[in-house]
Amino acid sequence: MDLKKAIRDIPDFPKPGIVFRDITTLLQHREAFKFALDQLMQRYSGRDITAVVGIESRGFIFGAPLASMLGLPFVLIRKPGKLPAEVVSQSYELEYGTDSIEIHKDALKKGDRVVIVDDLLATGGTAAAAAKLIESLGAEVDSFAFVVELSFLKGRDKLKGYDVFSLTEYTSE
Amino acid sequence: MDLKKAIRDIPDFPKPGIVFRDITTLLQHREAFKFALDQLMQRYSGRDITAVVGIESRGFIFGAPLASMLGLPFVLIRKPGKLPAEVVSQSYELEYGTDSIEIHKDALKKGDRVVIVDDLLATGGTAAAAAKLIESLGAEVDSFAFVVELSFLKGRDKLKGYDVFSLTEYTSE
Repeated sequence: MDLKKAIRDIPDFPKPGIVFRDITTLLQHREAFKFALDQLMQRYSGRDITAVVGIESRGFIFGAPLASMLGLPFVLIRKPGKLPAEVVSQSYELEYGTDSIEIHKDALKKGDRVVIVDDLLATGGTAAAAAKLIESLGAEVDSFAFVVELSFLKGRDKLKGYDVFSLTEYTSE
Repeated sequence: MDLKKAIRDIPDFPKPGIVFRDITTLLQHREAFKFALDQLMQRYSGRDITAVVGIESRGFIFGAPLASMLGLPFVLIRKPGKLPAEVVSQSYELEYGTDSIEIHKDALKKGDRVVIVDDLLATGGTAAAAAKLIESLGAEVDSFAFVVELSFLKGRDKLKGYDVFSLTEYTSE
């Protein structure tokens, strides 16, 4: 199944010149949604992983079912101020300025090995910051899983040394 | 299983005097997460539903696995400006001011019947606005499912005429 056929292209979103790859149409296509989750399940079942980590908020849409299917805990990485207990923060650079993400300090511990799930690998800034958060808790990153990879933005360069998997790849805008 | 034992109480979050019911501990407890999803699955399997709707962003965590388990499409309701294609918006009142949520215009159509999933039923403002969005597309709301219901805030009063289900209930702060 070609998942890209279920992903909608939206020109000029969120700003002129950008083609946004819209996964809401994939979610609304029951066979495509099932196929995407089956692919993740096949890749990560039987692997030495103790938890699934999802990055807010579209990472939750694929990470939560994956955790559920694998029978593993689901851990959230969120935007600042959203997690209520004690957190660790990690900032990362954007095109203009910086942003940051957070994880609960007690979400993971030494010995945990996780797969980090997000919908999109673009420049890799968020993903690299997520790995730093996991490692700051003493846990290990087994791998990254993305639904869409914009490979022309070379996000994998920021994730060297990690196993990176994507369900679809776009080699140009 | 008493799911409330897996939910953590955080006093004074997001502001003084509020006890926040933190479901991240439930997600990290694999048996509790499984039990919560099993309860939803039992209630909604075999029901006359054509899609599951999740409200950003914690609604995605329970809505996406439920849609996946039921083999149904998953539809997103998001904060303003997040959905890339043509949307319908609905505003609702907060304690101070207003907020709004959006759905893609082509996400549902006449004849669709949905369950709306969110983590929290508090005053019911977001949930009632979500029902209006669904109905503005010509679709029907079969029911609402929540993980946590703060019944002392009387959110059900805003959802009269709908089937409302919650996995846990808190009768006082």
